[in-house]
Amino acid sequence: MLFADGADLAHLPFELLLIFGAAKILAEICERLGQPGIIGEILAGVIIGPSLLNWVQPDPILAALAQIGVMFLLFRVGLEARGSELLRVGGTALLVAILGVAIPFGVGCAVMASVRASWIESFFIGASLVATSVGVTARVLATRGLVQERASQVIVAAAVIDDVLGLLVLAFVSSVAEHRLNVPRLVGSTVLAAGFTVVIAKFGTRTLRHVVPRVEQQLRTGETQFNIALIVLFGLSVLALWIGIAAIVGAFLAGMALSETVKPRVHDMAQGATELLVPFFLAGIGLNLDMAVFRDRGTILLSIVVVIAAVLSKLAGCGLGAWHLGWKDMMRIGVGMVPRGEVGMVVAQLGLSLGVINSAVYAIVVFMTVVTTMAAPPMLKYAYRDCRPGLPEEKYTLS
Amino acid sequence: MLFADGADLAHLPFELLLIFGAAKILAEICERLGQPGIIGEILAGVIIGPSLLNWVQPDPILAALAQIGVMFLLFRVGLEARGSELLRVGGTALLVAILGVAIPFGVGCAVMASVRASWIESFFIGASLVATSVGVTARVLATRGLVQERASQVIVAAAVIDDVLGLLVLAFVSSVAEHRLNVPRLVGSTVLAAGFTVVIAKFGTRTLRHVVPRVEQQLRTGETQFNIALIVLFGLSVLALWIGIAAIVGAFLAGMALSETVKPRVHDMAQGATELLVPFFLAGIGLNLDMAVFRDRGTILLSIVVVIAAVLSKLAGCGLGAWHLGWKDMMRIGVGMVPRGEVGMVVAQLGLSLGVINSAVYAIVVFMTVVTTMAAPPMLKYAYRDCRPGLPEEKYTLS
Repeated sequence: MLFADGADLAHLPFELLLIFGAAKILAEICERLGQPGIIGEILAGVIIGPSLLNWVQPDPILAALAQIGVMFLLFRVGLEARGSELLRVGGTALLVAILGVAIPFGVGCAVMASVRASWIESFFIGASLVATSVGVTARVLATRGLVQERASQVIVAAAVIDDVLGLLVLAFVSSVAEHRLNVPRLVGSTVLAAGFTVVIAKFGTRTLRHVVPRVEQQLRTGETQFNIALIVLFGLSVLALWIGIAAIVGAFLAGMALSETVKPRVHDMAQGATELLVPFFLAGIGLNLDMAVFRDRGTILLSIVVVIAAVLSKLAGCGLGAWHLGWKDMMRIGVGMVPRGEVGMVVAQLGLSLGVINSAVYAIVVFMTVVTTMAAPPMLKYAYRDCRPGLPEEKYTLS
Repeated sequence: MLFADGADLAHLPFELLLIFGAAKILAEICERLGQPGIIGEILAGVIIGPSLLNWVQPDPILAALAQIGVMFLLFRVGLEARGSELLRVGGTALLVAILGVAIPFGVGCAVMASVRASWIESFFIGASLVATSVGVTARVLATRGLVQERASQVIVAAAVIDDVLGLLVLAFVSSVAEHRLNVPRLVGSTVLAAGFTVVIAKFGTRTLRHVVPRVEQQLRTGETQFNIALIVLFGLSVLALWIGIAAIVGAFLAGMALSETVKPRVHDMAQGATELLVPFFLAGIGLNLDMAVFRDRGTILLSIVVVIAAVLSKLAGCGLGAWHLGWKDMMRIGVGMVPRGEVGMVVAQLGLSLGVINSAVYAIVVFMTVVTTMAAPPMLKYAYRDCRPGLPEEKYTLS
């Protein structure tokens, strides 16, 4: 009720209570059933959202909280990552990312072509299967204290590269759809995105380790280090968006660049913001699912095929890329890269707005996103069953 | 870019960077000029908002972040308060609140009557001068570690009572304007609001000290205590709104009820959420100011008179109520109660929508809100100059 422009916020605390409360209650129920809590938080969105009870609908405020939440999530994962170690696994990660983009794209196109979709529709579905959304995997690894494992580092590095490749694929299919393929520009923005990532990964940590303490000494306001950290977080997110990659890649790089600089207090404070906001990200995934389109048998069948294609193609592509690390790490990496997220929806939305895909196909993409995201946590739990957790946050969410 | 309903969030990280960055930079500048940083954060909103640069406009997402921010702010103030001590100063606080409501209401009506406004318009302006917004004062006291001072406790307790009285005044003027004064209902909701407040203040702490550890033991998810704290926070905010008082009163009571239960880690985590969100609350105050209406000389003059009336009437009313505590505490309490906020704007907005006040008068209320809010921190700094700060957060913002 603060603002004068007619925004009615009287229901906001109620939405906060409902979503946060439902997410935590269902997380607790899932834990007791031996399932990862994160599934409960996504299920909470499905249950209170349009698919079932329809108590809450997706709205811009919830979307904003979700967006800030996933930025903090990747920021915190970045805080635990070491730039040098990520660059060390860079070769493997590059191969994982490339195969993990090429194979799902090919398989997606093939599935659609087999049901006699137009080639441009096939391209769009292929493209929507490309980009891994590392948020959920990151959440599982962070709460179990597994971020330092070799496979986890490959996953995180590959997810960053994957995002750059996803940008390339998106730019490709959208320019094909609009009949204005501009190869030099495509190459240019890819080089820019790759350069940004490598420069921050390579020099960010060292630079901030020197710069931040000096800036901090000069400042007189309270909670200086936390404020500097947030400005770096928001700044690199903006820069990433401006270059054309996802804000969360910038957020991850910000965390990595600050990993050797900030005090434990800043970790705890960032953790507070993360814990507050992440349930809105997770429940938001479930909120977006609309089961109403699945009345048609053809749609159900196609969506099952697309989900299977999405899971297997990513598993195969990413697993193959990590061939030399052995069977266990191949599985871990493959499984960790399965979840798709916002980028797939953005691709599908673009196709919808260009009129090249219809709303049933769009709903299939959203369904695929939700299912791949929910499938990952139990598969990860299984794939990492031999790992002894390191030092996680407070208490293990998965155990 | 996460959600499918067309919410375009691509600009969100940019808005976060701009508002958070501007708030912190201007806070730093203010500190160096010997002014409280909080003024800089409000000024940041004035500068980047419609009044000057117009880079950012008030929007529902920023309003939501501001709202959650001020809830966390009051929650944290509640965490440092003791219910028993607040009830001890209850008598004084009641007198401070009653005089601090009655005198501004009378003075506001008198000022408007003297410029020949209609009696209903006078009533609305009087009502908009009534409700103290304790957010800014709480921020100053918390960052200086002065929450435990006697005067501070009276301020906080009086602000809670003030909110209940503000509800009464609002219900009174709006029912008069709509010619449907319902005295039994008015009395009923006041008793309900007062009862809610007293019951939580008196029994909340003891109850949660017993209940929370038991619930915590039963749960298996991570960060249990923080999650329970947030559910209590959101739950009591919803309850407060449902009863008809501000969500922040519920948030404050939630903090107080949890003050003897939660671990330092939960304090730090809540502090993270607070530090992230409070700049959006403070800059949001400045964003709402629209200087464009102040081209007319009559409006300028009237707004100056209203601001002076707002400051002096609250100072006098609240000061008088604390007569027996001596000169120093009278000043501290009077000054601490000066800031007006969202409730005044809600009253004015209601008058606008009922057609009993015009948009220039509405703008005057918003101006009064911003000026009284900005005047408070330096006055508080002066009034509390003899106090040795207790244990504040990390570093003093004001020194």
